[in-house]
Amino acid sequence: KNLHQLLRKWGGGPLISIIGSGDFSRVPLHPFAGLWFRVMVGSRNPTGVAVGSFPDGVEVVSHREVVQAAERVVFVAMFPEYYHTLVGLREQLVGKVLVDVSNATRMDLRRESNAEKMAELFPQSRVVKGFNVVSAWDLQTGAHDGSKQVLVCSDCPESKALVLDLTRRLGFSPVDLGGLCASREIEEVPLLLFPSWGGPAHGHLSPFPLLLSLLVSEERFSSTNFHWCMVMNQTLPSISLVLLALVYLPGLLAAGVQLWRGTKYQRFPAWLDVWLCRRKELGLLSFLCALLHTVYSLCLALRRAAGSTLGTIEHQSVWRSDLFLTCGILGLGVLSLLAVSSLPSVGKMLSWREFTFVQSGLGFTALTLSTMHTLFFGWDLVFHPSAYPYYMPPVHMLALVLPCLVLVGRVMVALPCVSRRLTRIRRGWERKPQTNKNLME
Amino acid sequence: KNLHQLLRKWGGGPLISIIGSGDFSRVPLHPFAGLWFRVMVGSRNPTGVAVGSFPDGVEVVSHREVVQAAERVVFVAMFPEYYHTLVGLREQLVGKVLVDVSNATRMDLRRESNAEKMAELFPQSRVVKGFNVVSAWDLQTGAHDGSKQVLVCSDCPESKALVLDLTRRLGFSPVDLGGLCASREIEEVPLLLFPSWGGPAHGHLSPFPLLLSLLVSEERFSSTNFHWCMVMNQTLPSISLVLLALVYLPGLLAAGVQLWRGTKYQRFPAWLDVWLCRRKELGLLSFLCALLHTVYSLCLALRRAAGSTLGTIEHQSVWRSDLFLTCGILGLGVLSLLAVSSLPSVGKMLSWREFTFVQSGLGFTALTLSTMHTLFFGWDLVFHPSAYPYYMPPVHMLALVLPCLVLVGRVMVALPCVSRRLTRIRRGWERKPQTNKNLME
Amino acid sequence: KNLHQLLRKWGGGPLISIIGSGDFSRVPLHPFAGLWFRVMVGSRNPTGVAVGSFPDGVEVVSHREVVQAAERVVFVAMFPEYYHTLVGLREQLVGKVLVDVSNATRMDLRRESNAEKMAELFPQSRVVKGFNVVSAWDLQTGAHDGSKQVLVCSDCPESKALVLDLTRRLGFSPVDLGGLCASREIEEVPLLLFPSWGGPAHGHLSPFPLLLSLLVSEERFSSTNFHWCMVMNQTLPSISLVLLALVYLPGLLAAGVQLWRGTKYQRFPAWLDVWLCRRKELGLLSFLCALLHTVYSLCLALRRAAGSTLGTIEHQSVWRSDLFLTCGILGLGVLSLLAVSSLPSVGKMLSWREFTFVQSGLGFTALTLSTMHTLFFGWDLVFHPSAYPYYMPPVHMLALVLPCLVLVGRVMVALPCVSRRLTRIRRGWERKPQTNKNLME
Repeated sequence: KNLHQLLRKWGGGPLISIIGSGDFSRVPLHPFAGLWFRVMVGSRNPTGVAVGSFPDGVEVVSHREVVQAAERVVFVAMFPEYYHTLVGLREQLVGKVLVDVSNATRMDLRRESNAEKMAELFPQSRVVKGFNVVSAWDLQTGAHDGSKQVLVCSDCPESKALVLDLTRRLGFSPVDLGGLCASREIEEVPLLLFPSWGGPAHGHLSPFPLLLSLLVSEERFSSTNFHWCMVMNQTLPSISLVLLALVYLPGLLAAGVQLWRGTKYQRFPAWLDVWLCRRKELGLLSFLCALLHTVYSLCLALRRAAGSTLGTIEHQSVWRSDLFLTCGILGLGVLSLLAVSSLPSVGKMLSWREFTFVQSGLGFTALTLSTMHTLFFGWDLVFHPSAYPYYMPPVHMLALVLPCLVLVGRVMVALPCVSRRLTRIRRGWERKPQTNKNLME
Repeated sequence: KNLHQLLRKWGGGPLISIIGSGDFSRVPLHPFAGLWFRVMVGSRNPTGVAVGSFPDGVEVVSHREVVQAAERVVFVAMFPEYYHTLVGLREQLVGKVLVDVSNATRMDLRRESNAEKMAELFPQSRVVKGFNVVSAWDLQTGAHDGSKQVLVCSDCPESKALVLDLTRRLGFSPVDLGGLCASREIEEVPLLLFPSWGGPAHGHLSPFPLLLSLLVSEERFSSTNFHWCMVMNQTLPSISLVLLALVYLPGLLAAGVQLWRGTKYQRFPAWLDVWLCRRKELGLLSFLCALLHTVYSLCLALRRAAGSTLGTIEHQSVWRSDLFLTCGILGLGVLSLLAVSSLPSVGKMLSWREFTFVQSGLGFTALTLSTMHTLFFGWDLVFHPSAYPYYMPPVHMLALVLPCLVLVGRVMVALPCVSRRLTRIRRGWERKPQTNKNLME
Repeated sequence: KNLHQLLRKWGGGPLISIIGSGDFSRVPLHPFAGLWFRVMVGSRNPTGVAVGSFPDGVEVVSHREVVQAAERVVFVAMFPEYYHTLVGLREQLVGKVLVDVSNATRMDLRRESNAEKMAELFPQSRVVKGFNVVSAWDLQTGAHDGSKQVLVCSDCPESKALVLDLTRRLGFSPVDLGGLCASREIEEVPLLLFPSWGGPAHGHLSPFPLLLSLLVSEERFSSTNFHWCMVMNQTLPSISLVLLALVYLPGLLAAGVQLWRGTKYQRFPAWLDVWLCRRKELGLLSFLCALLHTVYSLCLALRRAAGSTLGTIEHQSVWRSDLFLTCGILGLGVLSLLAVSSLPSVGKMLSWREFTFVQSGLGFTALTLSTMHTLFFGWDLVFHPSAYPYYMPPVHMLALVLPCLVLVGRVMVALPCVSRRLTRIRRGWERKPQTNKNLME
């Protein structure tokens, strides 16, 4: 009478056998698994497992019973130091496919992986590595789609095919990574910390210490009273401006590549692809720097107001100072809107066109405002010899180069002749490959 | 043996045929479509389609093969400039239902729509417009429920009924908009930018330039030194306060209408319905203005502290200035909480009662604090003749009118005699329609 | 031909009968219910129910028809004051299971509950309380998993079992709370406001008024000019610092308990469990206090700069003041990152390891920075007799005690000998229970 029971009987969904009742054992259990499959979990102490720690319909029995009832695939959801406790069940595991779901504890690709250890312990079973990337945590919180990817590897092709198929039916998207030696890399994936931030943080924050040391040396030599806060407050906006320009540079480069090739049906070079995917992280770093710069400016202005006269704002005319302030405040406001729209739940609410408007339209507005803010700040200094101690231009002028280039590039792409061609290419038009044709003949 | 294959066979889910393999072709493919339906995608160059760009089980073939295999409905997922490439398949498409999923490129209701063009090209096929509102982007990011609406129109009622049914089975909620001429409007829907913000931005920000010009003229005449930042910093809080009052006015009006009618079973007038739906956007605009006002105030106070004496705060007693500051800071804090709770992911976590408490309880607290902040600011000026240059009251006093009215209204609705009646009405009680009854007899 | 119809026929999903067509009647209607079940809704005025207010496939008929067609279970989705309108259907309801889904209007456990009233009105029906905790609002917005819990109670065990099973099949997770008298509590659950915030707000903000009064009295006696803002600005950071320390104390206590017991397979004491679950709320309160403290500091510094000399920053050396400022700004920045990562949609994007890094690594960084910020602030005052009026230490020194203890505890847990043992325990190792063994023999 129960629909689910009927479905399960008809579909003949295989039995899923799991050894181990800890957090790991929940990994292959997609929330909907219980609907289609029969699930059996083996525990060292089956009577001690708290009621309710597994969803309805999951049977909790002893290790031995799980192995005896198992069809072909057995998930081993234990810490690797306890694999030896299964040695007594070696006979029953002959010919079975053991799926190892454990993680590495340290980053060291030279060590033997847990899956390889298991393969040594059970030479007559077929070991497949998989499901360790999907953490029980992610499943519980209903995490993002990316985590539904399951990396799989094995030395036995048939067993791997079996597991790949099972994975797909469990609602994940499997990725075949080859032989069991790949398990060393697979086991280290959960140890990676913010992998998508690695590029931006390493590649693009590298000028940070350089800039900082440049500024420190400049300040140390040029002025008698050296102030750490002042130096921070000149480095941060420069970094922020450059990062913001780096967010919009790859889009222009991509447009350039498409124009040059005359088609959109060729892949971008790999480095450009990576860069395009990291724009969000670059933008958020830029926003963070801008925010810190704001707070620093306020605090420094307070201290200055309280007596010590270190500022540069007072030298300026009121009109320029008004524009300087307004550009800065509005630029920060627009950047905040961009940051809010990059929150996953807000981004989901936007249609594609709205997202484009926010990220491209508002983004270039923010870049323009920030550039103007910097220009108004440094206007006087440019023509003053004291701004070039030891013939070095001040840092904020160096930081202006890239943003200005990006803005010029944006204007050029927006020119009617260029933009019309670009639109046509993006709607599928292709330039006749004349040269190729000639070569063919 | 595979459950999904079985289900598909039993269910006899129709074949979904799609011509075109670009982004558009993913539109009718709801993430779960592949589970229940057989999907066939036609490409100009079927061997060139990258593996993995479509989900498992989707067959990628040539245009001709798709059309030949098609049951009755064929989705045409191409840019309109390529429709003519299908002319060679006209014979095979006779009697088929062509679903056009393309978008307009410009807002111009006088032009012929893409669907109408297609109907001219294939006079013996039945053209239905639909699915263009659901963007591939939305589906990919698992967007909000609103985007599951599919606007459909056609001149052939049977074909439309077929597509409406298919749409429903694909997991969308179709809306029938009539004949094919409606396709002009449907094609422009994806071009709309933040449609729910249109009302608030246009209707309620219209006083902004008016206020600004009023203030500029006031300042220009009254003071010798005119400051743009000062003017902005007087306009922004006034706008913010008025917008916040406009957030809570429609709720009071709705309560008034219900009290007057004595029932909740009648629809509100259309303008009130629209207004009630736009409260969130009004509130966020108000928060943005308040935030900018805060930053401006800090920056201006800094400049003032650095020498130029333009301020008004110094004239006040310390106690009033304390209250003025505290009301402002706490008001901004409460508004921030409101803004955070309007983030979709946070809002989802709140129960209905918590949402009411935050939006209504905290909202009126914010309104009260902002009103007091403005009152404490302007207390001295009210009784001073210099505050009325050319017999015009200062802007912040004009801005106080609406908030005070709303607060008085809120207090009246909270009076026991009124609130008890309102609660009864909202729980389904109806006043006996005596007059109607008399008229009936 | 329609798959869903087939599934419905095959599965024999029971008919769901609901009396009442208001918001309540949507409660048992999980978004997917219509897929598997036949749904019938009874209305006072079935022709007056707007088309589209119920999903496709729901039949809207009169109360009488619903009751006549009902299988065994009838949901009563009305306000309790209208139960008497069903008295005429008493005959048909004999032996049926009535599920009461209404809520209480006030918190008063001595009153008779709505379900008990219904049981009196229909003595020959079996009344089950349930589904009132799941609000129609939550279902509509697709709320969090927590709200899928359905609290159920009844005096008739068979009827309860029936409803528990139905609940499970509707996609909720039922919780059996015993006899019908439990309905008094169940009906008040929706009236609870932010129950998870109750503990932190009541238990941990209790020192707030105490501190405030302490400071007020100190200020009143010690200085001639008393300033409310100054007092607030000393109380807020102290509260913030103590709350932040309270976030990280329970984790250390948990580690201590595990080390002492030598196993992870015993539950923590109840108060520690509750405390561990409230860390997020404590952290957010701490962040709020820190934010208000920042704004207050800026405003006060402005006023001070404008003439009145109340400050303490000027007395310090520039280097210490730099460190003081930088620690404060960076501490607030790190706290902001923590607050952002506690947004549900952002938290979902993080893997378990990333979440640990953010909440534990960044958290202790923020605590260290805040403690240093406070230390640098009070350095001078510690050795100055004027800091101890009436032999009481200043408030910020009292606030430092707990954070310093927590930091020392963290360092001790990180010592190699301790941390190695802790890791082993958390991976399932257990100390041999020697004493128990001896006792057994």
